[in-house]
Amino acid sequence: MDAVIPTTSVSAGSRSEAADLRTKGAPLSPGGPVGAPAFLLLVLIVASTAGAEDGYDLWLRYPPVSDAALLRDYRERLSEVRVEGGSETLRAAREELQRGLRGLLGDAGARPGEVSRGGLLVAGTPEGSPAAAAPELAEDLRRAGAEGFVIRSTAIGDRPAIVVAANADVGVLYGTFHFLRLLQAHRRLEDLAVVEAPRTRYRVLNHWDNLDRTVERGYAGFSLWDWHKLPDYLSPRYRDYARANASIGINGTVLTSVNADATSLTPPYLAKAAALADVFRPWGIRVYLTARFSAPIEIGGLETADPRVGEVAAWWKRKADEIYGLIPDFGGFVVKANSEGQPGPQDYGRTHAEGANMLADAVSPHGGVVMWRAFVYSNEVPVDRAKQARDEFTPLDGAFRQNVLVQVKNGPIDFQPREPFHPLFGALPRTPLMMELQITQEYLGFATHLVFLAPMWEEVLRADTFARGEGSTVAKVIDGSLHGHERTGFAGVANTGTDRNWCGSAFACANWFAFGRVAWDPGLGSGEIADTWLRATFTNDPGFVGPVKEMMLGSWEAAVDYMTPLGLHHLMARGHHYGPGPWVSGGEREDWTSVYYHRADREGIGFDRSPSGSDAVSQYFPPLRELLGSVETVPEKYLLWFHHVRWDHRMESGRTLWDELVVRYSRGVETVRRMRETWRSLEGKIDSGRYEQVRAFLAIQEKEARWWRDACLLYFQTFSGRPIPEGYEPPEHTLEHYRAVRHPYAPGI
Amino acid sequence: MDAVIPTTSVSAGSRSEAADLRTKGAPLSPGGPVGAPAFLLLVLIVASTAGAEDGYDLWLRYPPVSDAALLRDYRERLSEVRVEGGSETLRAAREELQRGLRGLLGDAGARPGEVSRGGLLVAGTPEGSPAAAAPELAEDLRRAGAEGFVIRSTAIGDRPAIVVAANADVGVLYGTFHFLRLLQAHRRLEDLAVVEAPRTRYRVLNHWDNLDRTVERGYAGFSLWDWHKLPDYLSPRYRDYARANASIGINGTVLTSVNADATSLTPPYLAKAAALADVFRPWGIRVYLTARFSAPIEIGGLETADPRVGEVAAWWKRKADEIYGLIPDFGGFVVKANSEGQPGPQDYGRTHAEGANMLADAVSPHGGVVMWRAFVYSNEVPVDRAKQARDEFTPLDGAFRQNVLVQVKNGPIDFQPREPFHPLFGALPRTPLMMELQITQEYLGFATHLVFLAPMWEEVLRADTFARGEGSTVAKVIDGSLHGHERTGFAGVANTGTDRNWCGSAFACANWFAFGRVAWDPGLGSGEIADTWLRATFTNDPGFVGPVKEMMLGSWEAAVDYMTPLGLHHLMARGHHYGPGPWVSGGEREDWTSVYYHRADREGIGFDRSPSGSDAVSQYFPPLRELLGSVETVPEKYLLWFHHVRWDHRMESGRTLWDELVVRYSRGVETVRRMRETWRSLEGKIDSGRYEQVRAFLAIQEKEARWWRDACLLYFQTFSGRPIPEGYEPPEHTLEHYRAVRHPYAPGI
Repeated sequence: MDAVIPTTSVSAGSRSEAADLRTKGAPLSPGGPVGAPAFLLLVLIVASTAGAEDGYDLWLRYPPVSDAALLRDYRERLSEVRVEGGSETLRAAREELQRGLRGLLGDAGARPGEVSRGGLLVAGTPEGSPAAAAPELAEDLRRAGAEGFVIRSTAIGDRPAIVVAANADVGVLYGTFHFLRLLQAHRRLEDLAVVEAPRTRYRVLNHWDNLDRTVERGYAGFSLWDWHKLPDYLSPRYRDYARANASIGINGTVLTSVNADATSLTPPYLAKAAALADVFRPWGIRVYLTARFSAPIEIGGLETADPRVGEVAAWWKRKADEIYGLIPDFGGFVVKANSEGQPGPQDYGRTHAEGANMLADAVSPHGGVVMWRAFVYSNEVPVDRAKQARDEFTPLDGAFRQNVLVQVKNGPIDFQPREPFHPLFGALPRTPLMMELQITQEYLGFATHLVFLAPMWEEVLRADTFARGEGSTVAKVIDGSLHGHERTGFAGVANTGTDRNWCGSAFACANWFAFGRVAWDPGLGSGEIADTWLRATFTNDPGFVGPVKEMMLGSWEAAVDYMTPLGLHHLMARGHHYGPGPWVSGGEREDWTSVYYHRADREGIGFDRSPSGSDAVSQYFPPLRELLGSVETVPEKYLLWFHHVRWDHRMESGRTLWDELVVRYSRGVETVRRMRETWRSLEGKIDSGRYEQVRAFLAIQEKEARWWRDACLLYFQTFSGRPIPEGYEPPEHTLEHYRAVRHPYAPGI
Repeated sequence: MDAVIPTTSVSAGSRSEAADLRTKGAPLSPGGPVGAPAFLLLVLIVASTAGAEDGYDLWLRYPPVSDAALLRDYRERLSEVRVEGGSETLRAAREELQRGLRGLLGDAGARPGEVSRGGLLVAGTPEGSPAAAAPELAEDLRRAGAEGFVIRSTAIGDRPAIVVAANADVGVLYGTFHFLRLLQAHRRLEDLAVVEAPRTRYRVLNHWDNLDRTVERGYAGFSLWDWHKLPDYLSPRYRDYARANASIGINGTVLTSVNADATSLTPPYLAKAAALADVFRPWGIRVYLTARFSAPIEIGGLETADPRVGEVAAWWKRKADEIYGLIPDFGGFVVKANSEGQPGPQDYGRTHAEGANMLADAVSPHGGVVMWRAFVYSNEVPVDRAKQARDEFTPLDGAFRQNVLVQVKNGPIDFQPREPFHPLFGALPRTPLMMELQITQEYLGFATHLVFLAPMWEEVLRADTFARGEGSTVAKVIDGSLHGHERTGFAGVANTGTDRNWCGSAFACANWFAFGRVAWDPGLGSGEIADTWLRATFTNDPGFVGPVKEMMLGSWEAAVDYMTPLGLHHLMARGHHYGPGPWVSGGEREDWTSVYYHRADREGIGFDRSPSGSDAVSQYFPPLRELLGSVETVPEKYLLWFHHVRWDHRMESGRTLWDELVVRYSRGVETVRRMRETWRSLEGKIDSGRYEQVRAFLAIQEKEARWWRDACLLYFQTFSGRPIPEGYEPPEHTLEHYRAVRHPYAPGI
């Protein structure tokens, strides 16, 4: 039996029109292996067995529009669909429209290519589509730029029409997804006048995927790339991955881990990467690879990887030529060098710029770029690790080739639950800086904690660097407007894996979605992103969207509270980073321990980065450095990040620091409890498959939030010597219990 | 939107009755969140997006019966379904019938519990069901035993009826699956008189799954057990796993690898195992764990694991009590000891029996067993590894406790493409021997080679050991009839993983299915198993079943031909065992090399195990030892297993050994080419999802079959010095090319 669904007609009204339900019996795939009667039964079966909602469809679900009037309106306006042009990208757009409209409207609504007398949807570029070439769209199209699109309600002849126009095929694809999102959210179509252009140019996922399919900091199973079967077998999942990314504007993917393996640059692996690139290309996704700096030695047979040695540069040039021979639109290299033991130019006394430029010269003739990570710290433990990147890179400003982007994490340490923005933002006016965000929740509870990250990213992007006076937000650094850069971008450390629902949990997928939207438009609000995602992923039911959006928007602050409130950071267990480990000390290097960061003692707690301490505050522009540098003016959310503060310090609340710490930790747990209650109240509003998983995960989150709270408070209490204030839940176990917890097989390492 | 399918009525005829197609509009889930109209559309969507056939449903697909007359007959006979009794196991049976009949017949056919006037299906045990207690079933039920079942066409009152009866609930469940398989295969129901009882008692899967979710010799992704989220989160896949196993009679699962990790016996991991046991229990599946012999030291704080030390035995007893406190029906321990570096009793100068008995005494009060593996070889390289197990275990016959089963691989080396049966079979009359089969294709092309293993298992089971004279087949040793054992069983090294289709490919799942059927009835023929599986998995279309069955039945012999014909063995690449490595030599131990096994030289090739060589033939009973011991009488399929033979030796075909080798290798490749042609001719007969994957995998298989052939012939040619005979395809590359191939990240290690 063939489960491909023949184009059958189903007309259906709203619930109040139940009596109208009928299927038209005309067999629409005559000669096919499955006659119409068998077909309908078959569908029932498929749906009842394999088809239960399991999250695989992400935000690309197209359930039928339930509002009868709206459905009628949609059907009238979309009685015919034309995607004009023949490229693979336009075919992808056409098929997505077909899939989406068949789902949302039932097939009666729209069949691409079919002639009708109702409204019309036309999509295309001015080159291929007369509608898109209409003079009245020209100005909007100019604003849409290379990758953007225009969606306009208009008329063609005497028929009402909606035009999705773009300058390039990929813009049409983006516009198609945008349009379908409008329908998913049940938006009215009569007055559409959308012009969208991405505010950054390189919007890439960074996969920390190893060639053995383990994923560093991966909590959704294993790597999507089945390297062993590539290039001969192309899993359908590769296409679905590309489709999901394209739907949110992501245009690049770094297949391999920043802790790179030179094997990925050998011919067999390049053939595998090329096969993936072929699958991704129609969706506007370019492939990038990580470059291990010592590859010329490991796979090139050279004795050095010194960038000043001519044969090293020549080797990289040949390697780049080889790659572009296989992947003509190869994006370029991402490099982690001289950081956490990775090889790099400093091994030969050269600078990061010298290393980056050698690679940049290799890919430059082909239009490629190098994304050079600023997450560096030397093997000697510094006075303050937070300062190292800026100290190392500031002198190099202006020394990088034009096709180098320096990739900077949002904060100066390492994707902690909350960090102040990285002091490099604004500090390298002559160097394009990409922002690296971590979508995967290494420090935020793995996949089982519901933590919506858009508010964190929003906080960082809206922060003011004061680099060119007030209003010099981080977002303006990243979108290039502050210093006039055209090469701009975001890198997101992916949270995808082999789990059926892609990211381990439905809500983890919201962070993938949010990353794409933020990279497209760093000015988008978290609430808007959550709203769009919820409607596309679950339902438009306001009784669901409202409370769940609220839950999402408060979830990051809750996690900060139950893990690292008031500017605390790096308190997690060693290695796998699963659960609390504020007592972690000793070992390989001091700045991999918790005690290095919290510095709790009988007096107080916190890392003194004020002028009396490491003076990391001086890395920020005035007046921010003064604001952060004083206990009196620093925002309390960053208090212990920048200051060592006495336990009896009076907080804004009037409480002592110790009491406030208890209050914050407890508040985090309470918020999770409320999230559980909210979710419980929503049973039946969505499918049971996804509902049940979230229910189970929220229970885990509450358990682990308490674990964090109890372990941290008991441990810090050994310094403060103060009691848990009245009315706050006492710890469940002893400190010894928490210190003895072991998780030898926590995922992601 | 809720994708759970409400019980709706769909009547449908055959293709010729297309005009009859209609859906009845009555909303059958009033008050539910989804009204009937929305429902139908929803189904279309679910099916069109997530529901494409991807193999997840295995052989538990229930597509509508396409033959109109048969469908009418089925509906009449099954107009009412009653599963009588309230246990969780019976609920599972009821739900399976519901799912199966709704699929096969459309809902009109049967709704459990609904009163009707047509035929009746009743299922239950004599205790809970009057129909099952009918005196005329008593004799059959006696024959069905503890786990078997009876299916009988009969009458209840004036209504025709079918009774599925069993002595235990799990028998009803097995009978239910059996009955549904009859419907899947479109069998007539008027004269059912089935009595089935499993011929072995312990039918278990052995998962070589590590706690980090890697799977030793796993080619279907990673471990199904998401240990990190257990016990808090129970993936729905655990239930589907249990259901699939129950459907083929498997009643136990060893969760952890034989290369055991003592961590799996610590309290957190026991809680996780208990959670899985709770999911599996209704499906009649017991959980087993592997026991690392040195666990008392590693997690028990003892200084020794010597079985003669009282506190060691006491530790195991306490550990067993702890486990049974959590898992009352815990199956017992599986142990790999003193083999490939694993700890064991010999570390303390004790015998395998002493070690096994200590564990057996620990689980015995709770009804548990110990499965002690005979796959042992010491750290010193023996003269002939094939001989070691029998040499070690024969003196121990009769020394094991009653609840110990010695688990013996089908052949004396290690799951090679073809081996003669293990000489331990028949040689330990006082010891119950389980047979260990490898379902996962470690040596048979991983998941991408279509190799149906039932014929291999059939060859071994039908082999005559002559232990008690002619007719003393291996099957009779295993089912206990030869030596009067009641504890009998099969262990199958699982090939399941996180891949959506469970086993990496649709056809790999046939081996899982076959293992269950063979363990239930070692006398089943491979053709019958293939036939049943194909109908349940794909279609009853004779144009598909016929050619594909033929393809399956010839596939094992083809793999033997292109990998290791004429008794060759152990020629694979080192470590991962992916692809040919006949040149493998040196390294840690000689008996892990290829040259140790093939012993090719200028004179000839093969391992001399005749009396003039290692005399391994003497481990077989007469007259077999004489038959195998002479080049003149040994079956050619085992020629080079037992003899070192000159290149110019005349074969039955009249060809020289060298020419015959070329012919066999080439024949293997040719068979795969024909398999590809067959598959190509079947396009459209099944869904495109599974069709395309098999198509791609067969292309890989052909490529790799040629790789095997070319590499082996080129290599052996360096010894024989003879040419490839006229008319045979010359090797594609040079020997140097093949020797240089590296696969550092081949899966399964």
